[in-house]
Amino acid sequence: MKEQEYRKIESHMKDCMKEEDAAHDREHVYRVLRAALKIAESEPEADRDILTAACLLHDIGRERQYADPQVCHAEAGAEMALLFLREQGWEESRAAHVSACILTHRFRKGREPGSIEAKILFDADKLDACGAVGIARTLLYQGKMGEPLYRTGEDGRPLPGDPDEPESFLREYRKKLSKLYGRFYTPAAAEMAKERQVIAEAFYQAVLREIHMAD
Amino acid sequence: MKEQEYRKIESHMKDCMKEEDAAHDREHVYRVLRAALKIAESEPEADRDILTAACLLHDIGRERQYADPQVCHAEAGAEMALLFLREQGWEESRAAHVSACILTHRFRKGREPGSIEAKILFDADKLDACGAVGIARTLLYQGKMGEPLYRTGEDGRPLPGDPDEPESFLREYRKKLSKLYGRFYTPAAAEMAKERQVIAEAFYQAVLREIHMAD
Repeated sequence: MKEQEYRKIESHMKDCMKEEDAAHDREHVYRVLRAALKIAESEPEADRDILTAACLLHDIGRERQYADPQVCHAEAGAEMALLFLREQGWEESRAAHVSACILTHRFRKGREPGSIEAKILFDADKLDACGAVGIARTLLYQGKMGEPLYRTGEDGRPLPGDPDEPESFLREYRKKLSKLYGRFYTPAAAEMAKERQVIAEAFYQAVLREIHMAD
Repeated sequence: MKEQEYRKIESHMKDCMKEEDAAHDREHVYRVLRAALKIAESEPEADRDILTAACLLHDIGRERQYADPQVCHAEAGAEMALLFLREQGWEESRAAHVSACILTHRFRKGREPGSIEAKILFDADKLDACGAVGIARTLLYQGKMGEPLYRTGEDGRPLPGDPDEPESFLREYRKKLSKLYGRFYTPAAAEMAKERQVIAEAFYQAVLREIHMAD
């Protein structure tokens, strides 16, 4: 993609993502882009321009979802990206291709990524919830929301983070973060996720040991 | 310490610590107490009642510091604890001993913990800034304050967290968290800290690798 075109799309992303949260800020967008381009090294048929545009624009629908939680940011973002790329003079089929990648980047039943570019975006976005960065983003977000590291029982001891407990880091790790690692479409992303799983699991186990004074 | 006496001091701690932050909440207090009692297993001369009271009350001055950043929470807490324990009918020398532990739990030049109970409280409090829990507390706090995982340079690449950068997790780790591990008074705490350093350093290194896509 030409520098000038990249700058235009990047600038639109920045305009759309003003109200950032620590887990879904612009740095998340750039990490997803870097990861996607790395995965694409093993997927030579992937169109780099489609992929770059899809990565840059994948979360532009978030502010609509913040304003109205009924809105799905993937649906909103897909629509916004289609309109924007049409305005920029993109061919209809290419604009629609980017839009479809954005629509399927959020895991929803019956809506799976179809093209290789959609699969790479999906994987790169999930990869940012893996490993140390995934844990750090979760904790930054939970700190913002006032959620604790763990809950305690009536005896004052830390609870394990079961599904029926209120939100906490331990609950989020068990419910969501620990379950990401099998869900990748591309072999390159699956491999990277496997490497990242080691530190994530080690961190979680260390939290458990430390809060129970079992070290 | 008798159950009834423990409950009275605990209840006073809860009254004083209503406006919690994720890094210095009541769970921090209980973790410090558990760690202190574990360290005390290797320090048989330590007075468990002095230590328990000092741990429970060590952060009761925090709300005064929130209200006025000029106030030192260790100084305020030491004074508050002295008044409270006198009211509870504690002997003056024992109340003063607890108060002195609280005064020196915060690292300040020229104010070092003197008694073994003061040293254990200091170590137990520092231990809670080590390891996975120390990292989690830092991230929860930074999330609340709206600070990011890292800053970026003009080229958009992540910056390393140098002292002259604005606040971020990478800066806080390098400036503060990475430097805690040599500063312990008791051998038991030094040993526990050394174990916890492994996961903290591994997590930091993993963040660096992942944000630079170097895995």
